[in-house]
Amino acid sequence: MAKNTKLWGGRFEGTVEDWVERFGASISFDQKLAKFDVIGSLAHVQMLGQTGILSLEESEKIQVGLKELLEELEAGQLDFDIANEDIHMNMEVLLTEKIGPLAGKLHTARSRNDQVATDMHLYLKEQLGYVLDKLAHLKGVLLDLAENHVATIMPGYTHLQHAQPISFAYHLMAYYNMFQRDSERFEFNQKHTDLCPLGAAALAGTTFPIDRQLSSDLLEFKQPYTNSLDAVSDRDFILEFLSNASILMMHMSRFCEEMINWCSFEYQFITLSDTFTIGSSIMPQKKNPDMAELIRGKTGRVYGHLFGLLTVMKSLPLAYNKDLQEDKEGMFDTVETILNSLDVLAGMLSSLQVNKEKMQESTEKDFSNATELADYLAGKGLPFREAHEVVGRLVLDSIKSAKNLQDWTLEELQTYHSLITEDIYVYLQPKTAVQRRNSLGGTGFDQVEYQIAVAKKANEAKK
Amino acid sequence: MAKNTKLWGGRFEGTVEDWVERFGASISFDQKLAKFDVIGSLAHVQMLGQTGILSLEESEKIQVGLKELLEELEAGQLDFDIANEDIHMNMEVLLTEKIGPLAGKLHTARSRNDQVATDMHLYLKEQLGYVLDKLAHLKGVLLDLAENHVATIMPGYTHLQHAQPISFAYHLMAYYNMFQRDSERFEFNQKHTDLCPLGAAALAGTTFPIDRQLSSDLLEFKQPYTNSLDAVSDRDFILEFLSNASILMMHMSRFCEEMINWCSFEYQFITLSDTFTIGSSIMPQKKNPDMAELIRGKTGRVYGHLFGLLTVMKSLPLAYNKDLQEDKEGMFDTVETILNSLDVLAGMLSSLQVNKEKMQESTEKDFSNATELADYLAGKGLPFREAHEVVGRLVLDSIKSAKNLQDWTLEELQTYHSLITEDIYVYLQPKTAVQRRNSLGGTGFDQVEYQIAVAKKANEAKK
Amino acid sequence: MAKNTKLWGGRFEGTVEDWVERFGASISFDQKLAKFDVIGSLAHVQMLGQTGILSLEESEKIQVGLKELLEELEAGQLDFDIANEDIHMNMEVLLTEKIGPLAGKLHTARSRNDQVATDMHLYLKEQLGYVLDKLAHLKGVLLDLAENHVATIMPGYTHLQHAQPISFAYHLMAYYNMFQRDSERFEFNQKHTDLCPLGAAALAGTTFPIDRQLSSDLLEFKQPYTNSLDAVSDRDFILEFLSNASILMMHMSRFCEEMINWCSFEYQFITLSDTFTIGSSIMPQKKNPDMAELIRGKTGRVYGHLFGLLTVMKSLPLAYNKDLQEDKEGMFDTVETILNSLDVLAGMLSSLQVNKEKMQESTEKDFSNATELADYLAGKGLPFREAHEVVGRLVLDSIKSAKNLQDWTLEELQTYHSLITEDIYVYLQPKTAVQRRNSLGGTGFDQVEYQIAVAKKANEAKK
Amino acid sequence: MAKNTKLWGGRFEGTVEDWVERFGASISFDQKLAKFDVIGSLAHVQMLGQTGILSLEESEKIQVGLKELLEELEAGQLDFDIANEDIHMNMEVLLTEKIGPLAGKLHTARSRNDQVATDMHLYLKEQLGYVLDKLAHLKGVLLDLAENHVATIMPGYTHLQHAQPISFAYHLMAYYNMFQRDSERFEFNQKHTDLCPLGAAALAGTTFPIDRQLSSDLLEFKQPYTNSLDAVSDRDFILEFLSNASILMMHMSRFCEEMINWCSFEYQFITLSDTFTIGSSIMPQKKNPDMAELIRGKTGRVYGHLFGLLTVMKSLPLAYNKDLQEDKEGMFDTVETILNSLDVLAGMLSSLQVNKEKMQESTEKDFSNATELADYLAGKGLPFREAHEVVGRLVLDSIKSAKNLQDWTLEELQTYHSLITEDIYVYLQPKTAVQRRNSLGGTGFDQVEYQIAVAKKANEAKK
Repeated sequence: MAKNTKLWGGRFEGTVEDWVERFGASISFDQKLAKFDVIGSLAHVQMLGQTGILSLEESEKIQVGLKELLEELEAGQLDFDIANEDIHMNMEVLLTEKIGPLAGKLHTARSRNDQVATDMHLYLKEQLGYVLDKLAHLKGVLLDLAENHVATIMPGYTHLQHAQPISFAYHLMAYYNMFQRDSERFEFNQKHTDLCPLGAAALAGTTFPIDRQLSSDLLEFKQPYTNSLDAVSDRDFILEFLSNASILMMHMSRFCEEMINWCSFEYQFITLSDTFTIGSSIMPQKKNPDMAELIRGKTGRVYGHLFGLLTVMKSLPLAYNKDLQEDKEGMFDTVETILNSLDVLAGMLSSLQVNKEKMQESTEKDFSNATELADYLAGKGLPFREAHEVVGRLVLDSIKSAKNLQDWTLEELQTYHSLITEDIYVYLQPKTAVQRRNSLGGTGFDQVEYQIAVAKKANEAKK
Repeated sequence: MAKNTKLWGGRFEGTVEDWVERFGASISFDQKLAKFDVIGSLAHVQMLGQTGILSLEESEKIQVGLKELLEELEAGQLDFDIANEDIHMNMEVLLTEKIGPLAGKLHTARSRNDQVATDMHLYLKEQLGYVLDKLAHLKGVLLDLAENHVATIMPGYTHLQHAQPISFAYHLMAYYNMFQRDSERFEFNQKHTDLCPLGAAALAGTTFPIDRQLSSDLLEFKQPYTNSLDAVSDRDFILEFLSNASILMMHMSRFCEEMINWCSFEYQFITLSDTFTIGSSIMPQKKNPDMAELIRGKTGRVYGHLFGLLTVMKSLPLAYNKDLQEDKEGMFDTVETILNSLDVLAGMLSSLQVNKEKMQESTEKDFSNATELADYLAGKGLPFREAHEVVGRLVLDSIKSAKNLQDWTLEELQTYHSLITEDIYVYLQPKTAVQRRNSLGGTGFDQVEYQIAVAKKANEAKK
Repeated sequence: MAKNTKLWGGRFEGTVEDWVERFGASISFDQKLAKFDVIGSLAHVQMLGQTGILSLEESEKIQVGLKELLEELEAGQLDFDIANEDIHMNMEVLLTEKIGPLAGKLHTARSRNDQVATDMHLYLKEQLGYVLDKLAHLKGVLLDLAENHVATIMPGYTHLQHAQPISFAYHLMAYYNMFQRDSERFEFNQKHTDLCPLGAAALAGTTFPIDRQLSSDLLEFKQPYTNSLDAVSDRDFILEFLSNASILMMHMSRFCEEMINWCSFEYQFITLSDTFTIGSSIMPQKKNPDMAELIRGKTGRVYGHLFGLLTVMKSLPLAYNKDLQEDKEGMFDTVETILNSLDVLAGMLSSLQVNKEKMQESTEKDFSNATELADYLAGKGLPFREAHEVVGRLVLDSIKSAKNLQDWTLEELQTYHSLITEDIYVYLQPKTAVQRRNSLGGTGFDQVEYQIAVAKKANEAKK
Repeated sequence: MAKNTKLWGGRFEGTVEDWVERFGASISFDQKLAKFDVIGSLAHVQMLGQTGILSLEESEKIQVGLKELLEELEAGQLDFDIANEDIHMNMEVLLTEKIGPLAGKLHTARSRNDQVATDMHLYLKEQLGYVLDKLAHLKGVLLDLAENHVATIMPGYTHLQHAQPISFAYHLMAYYNMFQRDSERFEFNQKHTDLCPLGAAALAGTTFPIDRQLSSDLLEFKQPYTNSLDAVSDRDFILEFLSNASILMMHMSRFCEEMINWCSFEYQFITLSDTFTIGSSIMPQKKNPDMAELIRGKTGRVYGHLFGLLTVMKSLPLAYNKDLQEDKEGMFDTVETILNSLDVLAGMLSSLQVNKEKMQESTEKDFSNATELADYLAGKGLPFREAHEVVGRLVLDSIKSAKNLQDWTLEELQTYHSLITEDIYVYLQPKTAVQRRNSLGGTGFDQVEYQIAVAKKANEAKK
């Protein structure tokens, strides 16, 4: 296609060299917006017809052409040309080929500035829906897994040291809560995405008697932007998205880090299914948690995209600047990354095998029942600080004697404090420790069961 | 104060060297949480009394001690000691000095993990209120300024090139809309800040029959966390805050960049008041927009804090890890930075002088009325693309002849297109160009006045 | 191609689902390493032959096969299959198709871990050469431009306020110096890139009697890594590259920001050639500095890639983890971004038109000669602080009277200070101000000419 | 101190409000530069004397005053006042108090722009020396530890799965190599730090006949900047530092992550000394690796400072802008963070206890000898890919039978492949596996010993 299809050429004399053109062109990536570009144009030209800016007949003819383009696009029959710079000009050229110079009237009362903003809003709005669906699915998987493991006891960690025994379901529910907040953030993200820039034109609105409310309604946006300068300069909705995606990836990176630990030789708490592990080209015994590592690693790219766009926007004067073209690739890649990561994580969770005995065993020789003894003494009236001191000494002596707390005789224990009586051995069992933490939000079996039930109800409502 | 006040020392034999202690200690910065630490303790011990975990008398005595500490704190009479590591231990030591070993009972059924999380939630909740107040104030200043400049005409820019003339009020309203979205984000931020971790204890809840709902109510939180592991590991509310603050700083950096341009020799659109400018130690004529530059520059530190905490949280296993201590300084500094920046920006805006004539003049010889001519031709039925081409040629010829569009005679103009008639000279006036963009969100005078009125009503309601 | 070509499959039972495979596969982007993968294999198998690990005949046959693959690759005849995961396995499968099961011996005494690291080192080493070439070219363009503008006077800015008049060449030379440091950084970057990981195997070296020095020599690396664990885990050379690229983009963003200012309506200091500007689809008069804006905007993506990889590497245990696969796309994109940006910037500079008169004019009514007066008084013995004070008052009075300093009569000037005599008017000329700043590194004409000459000589030596 | 000490006040009429002043003032943090500010002034005034710009007597008197200030500073007797904005003005006011109006002559032929840049270069140059010293110390500690553990066998990991047995010394040497590269980076960092901006003045040099080479020599800089605009705008040396510090922290975060794993209940490979661990306020058994976690966590703040300054510098026009004031706090904090972290890490390493038996044991039942068997078969002529397949099947059967490879009888093993003979049992021992990887850079005992010796020699030379 000839270069003279560049539609802003009247004022220009020189020729555009190819490699500069390539540097400036966005069609290689913004073709992802093709569908939305046509849909936006359809609404725009329908509005132009209804307001009398174009005749109804003109509007109709353009719509027919656009609908054909949409069909061809969905059939994979459209070819884009880098000589036409971006998706908007490519589409206009294609429309011109189809319906002739009338195509030129489509661009009445709009600019590429509001057009691309509209495309981006439509795109992200759709993707947010997918993200929320996949989050709901992941939460469902978590809840199902949790339901089966309320009574599965594992070590609870702080500082990666055994702290107190907890229920595996309870551990999973911590992640449920993180993903729940993620969902709420993406829902809030819709608020600033669900705004229609169409008709903002270049930066100042237009002199044509357009009906922006109508365009907005046709595109099923909640409402139009109320300041056109803002409408074409605003990328907050993308920054919110990248920020939410970063926090989501952070949550997933924590979960994946834990699963990588759990399936290691040292832990053996879980076995990942073959589908989500990969072998080694050199070490035949390896079954590597590649998928978990990849999700963890992909946190970097999402953080990077957030920082990239924040950098782009920093100290950028109003209104549209070409720098804003850099808003797209990072967003596209982030969408793909989080959708895939959510799928992979849900798949990993629904196919992993939990080695209950290993988990339970691990809580029996690790002093994670030390708090029980301290609480026991505090419960009998000893100030907590003193109880803590007493148990500290006992732990130190136990380590030196290679014993667990429950291995000492009652007489021996009483030399540490006379308040200790026979019932202590029950308190020292991990199961008791878990069971008794039944306050709101605790790891007690009843409490966890209750929290799962509440969450299931809430998550079902979302599906 | 002796080092043996370290309250976790029973299990330990070696001595802690001073410089390692300093590396680990947080008291130098977490003393900012002192007020909230006491308030959280007050609620906790009141709950301990009401649930019978402590006797009412014990609870009462501890409360009296805490209240005295609070008074002394507010009077600036408390000294903290690095030997006591953090604010929590410092406070407990101070309480012990006041009421003796009973102080040790305060820590029953809680841990430093839920305690510090509670302090942070209380702190940020308070600060979010201040941020919202200052945002409302800034928006008020913007609206007042806008009200006075609906009819002030300035060049509208894209790519920092004159594009179309706009109203100065309209430009200001673009920022109003950004700050409005900022407000909405900080309001949403309250949702995940207004959660009470108290009683989550170390990671698993506690065996004591605590009433977390009561603690939450006493602290005026909306509700308790429902999973304790999550409660002590969650820093989402801070990440949301840092992310929102980053977007806010980005908006301010754009505004400041524009003001720096506007007060330059080349623009002279505004004059900043002496209060917000600084001289040079060497160049006597200088009146530098230091405050605007500082706000713009401080964007970096806030972005940095966001990425700092995202890095800290990446792939961190549950539950509490010491890495989380790194959540504080960046948050404190961000709070201070945005509160100050909001104040300074509001001050700059309310004291600046607008050079209307310079702004207006600048729109008269810049071809920013070229769109008017294209729209004029399109309005008369010429396809927009053709109109664009015609005007492009005219602009090029005008540049070569050092003329503005309005400088050509009607006859000359008609050689470009016969649809041009006498009325074109009205259309070419900047004022007309602004006035006619009266569609929703456009720069038209009526439209802008309407948008200001709507915004004023909304912002008043917030105050 | 059948999935059972996965070469690590013996230990596995389940089937790998397609979408998980896609998530884990890197062939879509690591095919950029294809050439280096074959070159690395060639060196490896040559070494295997020379050390007798394979027979010379075996080594020869494999080399023939690899050379054919290299030819086909360069002819664009190779097709890669996502079912074969990455470039290494794709290449091995292709080699097997060519020479049969003997291909399996190629992987003796190496692992994908050292293989991919070798590919990356070879790739970046080549690219660093290109980067340095393009930097030298850009510096050459700058020097040529500077040579023509030693006597072109423009305002020097601090705080974007006119400060003191300077030579345009001098301003350009500031950027020359930045790009010179960039070159030095990329040269240093070669040191840690020019290390050969081949033979490090999975993580521990190998039991085969390989000759790593030979492999390294064959690939023209400076030396092999001396610790294999480090060799497969190290990504410092990429981080150095991303960091250097970030600083380079930062420099270019500053330059582009200035050019965007300079070609604006307000400045009109330069006119960019049509090749590097773009029109508007709606505003016919626009000639937007899109290319400068894009370079400025692309700073964000490079910063993002740096932060992305720093995030990936943070707290990653040794040795290879799948997270490291995330090192590639950001590096590839950064290479492309900086190479293109360097080309575009050089093109913009060599084709721009400098509007000398506008620049000069701008220095004549801006008080940027105020320092001259202060220095004049200080030169006559007045303490500088007093001189500064005197001139400050004069500037203020000048603004109020709408005068420039040189507009006052001698008598009037002497009311400010009696040390002022007739010769002051020469000192107040911008040309004098520039000329007299002739100390080392100053903007004086002779000094700038000298610095250009020195730089030309140094840069020529590099070409 | 009265506000009228603001030395740029002649042109100003309004009063500066206190809180704006506080926002703009830097004295609260730039007092860290006090020493260097005086030293820079001393060199400057000495140069002014020698060039005759000031009389020798004037120069002498000012020097005497400055030296007194330096003494008082070192004795902690100087008080700075926020009303004097920054360290430069504070110092000048203090000097004026000491020697009267003559102090005003010190600022002849310089500006705060070159002054602060000089301070920063002097500061960082000194700190780079400390960083290099501490790195050398840390490397020494690593080498000493490695020397004692050449024969200590531990599992080598990829994907956090046991891969092949390695020597603990070999693992430590991987970190040695990272820190060696860090040293080389900080050494390179000196190149762009060791440049003298003094005399660049505001942006353009000065009309006074200064001798910048002399100033540079007096301050022991390698050479002066050759372009003054660059000299006052350049912050590359700080960005290099922050980038190097980020990579260093990344290395330390990896090491700390590993140590946190190693001292966990699941690994028990090492025991950290009490000095570097902290207890829990609630769980008496806890001995948490707080210091390792803190170093890991502090990676975030250093990354954040790097991105903060990159953001500040992005698209900042030349020359000095107030944004640049934001270069300091992040640099100061980074210096402190890495110096402390290097100390703490060295302390941790020199005091930790290595549990050799646990490490060794862990390599005996983990299939990490599977590669040995594959290599064994490949060594006997089986294509590696087939050997890999055979061993893969054997591993799977071993897992199902709960056996290790060495637990099968020779007859059983031969059913997998007939090439297996009696000697296989020696090959399957971890010790053999380590010993035989004796190629350059491998984990073999001799090889590791050799690498330690080479490194010791190199590191000694640095001390």
